[in-house]
Amino acid sequence: MTHMAVPSGRPDTAPVAPSGRRDAGATRAAILRAARHLLARHAHADITLRSVAERAGVSPPLILKYFGSKDALFAQVMSFEADATALLDAPLDALGAHMVRHVLVSQSEHGADPLLRVVFAPLHREHGDVLRANFRTQVAARLAARLPGPDAGLRAELAVGMLLGLGVMYGIVSGTRLRAAGLDAITDRYAPAVQAHLTRWPGGGPVRDIP
Amino acid sequence: MTHMAVPSGRPDTAPVAPSGRRDAGATRAAILRAARHLLARHAHADITLRSVAERAGVSPPLILKYFGSKDALFAQVMSFEADATALLDAPLDALGAHMVRHVLVSQSEHGADPLLRVVFAPLHREHGDVLRANFRTQVAARLAARLPGPDAGLRAELAVGMLLGLGVMYGIVSGTRLRAAGLDAITDRYAPAVQAHLTRWPGGGPVRDIP
Repeated sequence: MTHMAVPSGRPDTAPVAPSGRRDAGATRAAILRAARHLLARHAHADITLRSVAERAGVSPPLILKYFGSKDALFAQVMSFEADATALLDAPLDALGAHMVRHVLVSQSEHGADPLLRVVFAPLHREHGDVLRANFRTQVAARLAARLPGPDAGLRAELAVGMLLGLGVMYGIVSGTRLRAAGLDAITDRYAPAVQAHLTRWPGGGPVRDIP
Repeated sequence: MTHMAVPSGRPDTAPVAPSGRRDAGATRAAILRAARHLLARHAHADITLRSVAERAGVSPPLILKYFGSKDALFAQVMSFEADATALLDAPLDALGAHMVRHVLVSQSEHGADPLLRVVFAPLHREHGDVLRANFRTQVAARLAARLPGPDAGLRAELAVGMLLGLGVMYGIVSGTRLRAAGLDAITDRYAPAVQAHLTRWPGGGPVRDIP
């Protein structure tokens, strides 16, 4: 069974092994990964520094050394800045396919889709509102800023909605046909509609035939 | 602030008021609603009969009288049969628009989208697998059974993915532009791509121009 935030190749329940040789970057990444994992399964209020530390294979004081506080750690876990940079890293006329592929590769190769963190907002009460607001600003509005034509904000939200849905169907529902299909085949079928929100609009835009 | 499973017009935290006049159907619905609400915010293992009863404004024994057991109650809460019947209640050539509108109306008028329960599967461990399997069988496969053409299973999963994404963007992310747009405008923009998965396929199918 596939869980959303499970790093690929490691069983769901195994914490990262502590290692004297691990460098600061790897430790930091392990702490962030542990916090993301827990945040997809437990309410914010129920997650302790100790539970993050245990899962990451480090001590609670080490987390404070790296992040300052539990709040500062979670502020970072709740940011979509880095993910949006990767998601949006393509020229506009190829962006639909790039974004679809990015979602699929995140799921199938890394076993996690950072964008999907937003679906757990209802779990986290006021922290969920931070997650929602970050997502709207850091992902949807950032995409909208790149779009020509009218209603760019709405079109960006619709395009991002399609991406989230693909991520849910692949990563959470584990759709059996999706899982069996190649990434190219899925991208070929799904990306044109995403692209249409970016560069086509009613009554205008560079309309092309959708294959 | 919008929560997914909040009945419209009632604050998030208010339990259903107990009422001597409420009939069996209303009581049953209140219990199901309370269980759905809790299941979107807490792990299955953390939800007690008492917490469902408190939220529904009834006694725990009354829940047992109506549903038999906590497991039987949650089996019903985790079924998508009734939702799929409403979702799929349209002729095939109008089904894309019907499904999109169904998702939007569920969110905007009823304040909840029963399909979206599946996104919380990672919270519930083995019960999450029940939720996933039910969704695949009761929603995606049931849609696939209606589709002509090749790869019906994959096309159904892609179409349902688009619907889930719209629900997430509207109901969980609360996209500001989506929330401000009319349901007709959203349906006009979003439904053609959903419909394309249903009745168009590469190299065949009744291809029509997408407006």
